[in-house]
Amino acid sequence: MVKVVILGTGNLATNLFKACKTAKNITVVQVYNHHNQSLKAFEEFTEVTTNLNDLKTANFYILALKDDIIPGIAKKINTKSGIVLHTSGAMHINALDKNENFGVFYPLQTFSKEKAVNFTEIPICIEANSEENLDQIKDFALKLSQDVREIDSTQRKALHLAAVFVNNFSNHLYDLGDEICREHQVDFSILQALIKETASKVETLSPREAQTGPSVRADTATMHSHLELLTGHKKKIYTLLSDSIQKLHGKKL
Amino acid sequence: MVKVVILGTGNLATNLFKACKTAKNITVVQVYNHHNQSLKAFEEFTEVTTNLNDLKTANFYILALKDDIIPGIAKKINTKSGIVLHTSGAMHINALDKNENFGVFYPLQTFSKEKAVNFTEIPICIEANSEENLDQIKDFALKLSQDVREIDSTQRKALHLAAVFVNNFSNHLYDLGDEICREHQVDFSILQALIKETASKVETLSPREAQTGPSVRADTATMHSHLELLTGHKKKIYTLLSDSIQKLHGKKL
Repeated sequence: MVKVVILGTGNLATNLFKACKTAKNITVVQVYNHHNQSLKAFEEFTEVTTNLNDLKTANFYILALKDDIIPGIAKKINTKSGIVLHTSGAMHINALDKNENFGVFYPLQTFSKEKAVNFTEIPICIEANSEENLDQIKDFALKLSQDVREIDSTQRKALHLAAVFVNNFSNHLYDLGDEICREHQVDFSILQALIKETASKVETLSPREAQTGPSVRADTATMHSHLELLTGHKKKIYTLLSDSIQKLHGKKL
Repeated sequence: MVKVVILGTGNLATNLFKACKTAKNITVVQVYNHHNQSLKAFEEFTEVTTNLNDLKTANFYILALKDDIIPGIAKKINTKSGIVLHTSGAMHINALDKNENFGVFYPLQTFSKEKAVNFTEIPICIEANSEENLDQIKDFALKLSQDVREIDSTQRKALHLAAVFVNNFSNHLYDLGDEICREHQVDFSILQALIKETASKVETLSPREAQTGPSVRADTATMHSHLELLTGHKKKIYTLLSDSIQKLHGKKL
């Protein structure tokens, strides 16, 4: 049985806890957080603590915490045998080098407490301070997901940046689309089939091949009529993204 | 049996032709295009023509053509009984008012010739110049899709604009993510689970609720480290979209 301590109670910690609970041969022996309130959701399932000196013995100490507090918390985990892992896309593995055994367990997915995800399909990017620890992290990650990849800190940082573009920024575009719908009394749900198809198209076509729309057709009449409907940030975003599309496709007018 | 003439041979025309072929009680009696070459893909299945004076009698003449040539082609269709439909998101219904019976049949989806879509799940936005024609268009649309909605020209134009944000612009962000991956020798396929989850999240949460990432957390350290990796259009887009996210979420620093 692999013993795990999860540090943190946010979106990732919550989803990771659920995934460990359903996985075979993993037990979450403890959840840590610096304040009590958010531990309430966990205390009926496992031990909880607000004291870093009370951490139980475990194979893995998984830091599902904000980037800026990771190095400070890691330093305070006194463990000779357990492997300390951070889960950050942007942070270098060496942020943990005050520990003896350390590595990275970065699940490349967006997490919300309100929506469960299928952890077995999430790519897990792993890295370690030794070959031996890498093997252990890999075995552990493969109990949770079928898609485990060795990715170094530089690649992971780039991947995290790419994720901001395809996830955070795309979601913001959905939000702007929702605003436009509401301004014209149209139900946003009508766009959901389109959003899903846009996402699934890039499984079979490259995004370059999949590009459609007025900008790539250089349909300036439609673009002008769209710009007339826009003001503020939405207008700036429409102009900049259209320009960027035309540049990538060699359509700059 | 509902008889249809399709005018055009592009992405939408191709997908519409396939959908009509599999639908019950619809027959495509003819496909028109101004040049012969692109009609070859259709001629083993139906009659084809390059001459607008040779159009066959039909219930619907569906213009799956570029916006700028729609009014000119529509004027040349001499039909007393058939309903002339355009399929454009941006064009007002009155672009067809030289015809006696006319309307709009706008399938809100992204089409490529290379990738088949399930037409029955596509929202079809319809509009007509009379109640009687609206009923006929509705009956026809319901043979092709289970999701048929009456949307007027003003709403449809806004919807088309919203579609540019959620589809064309999101796809461009995938393209920029792909570029970042390639620059760092990471396979873009690793992002596909994230892209799909981002799209399916807004079926249960509003985009505002679903927003995650460094901008909405006001995690300036991560944002700075991302910006160091970027130049040119990608840097401008990162800055503008982060700014827009923070503005919408009241996080402007």
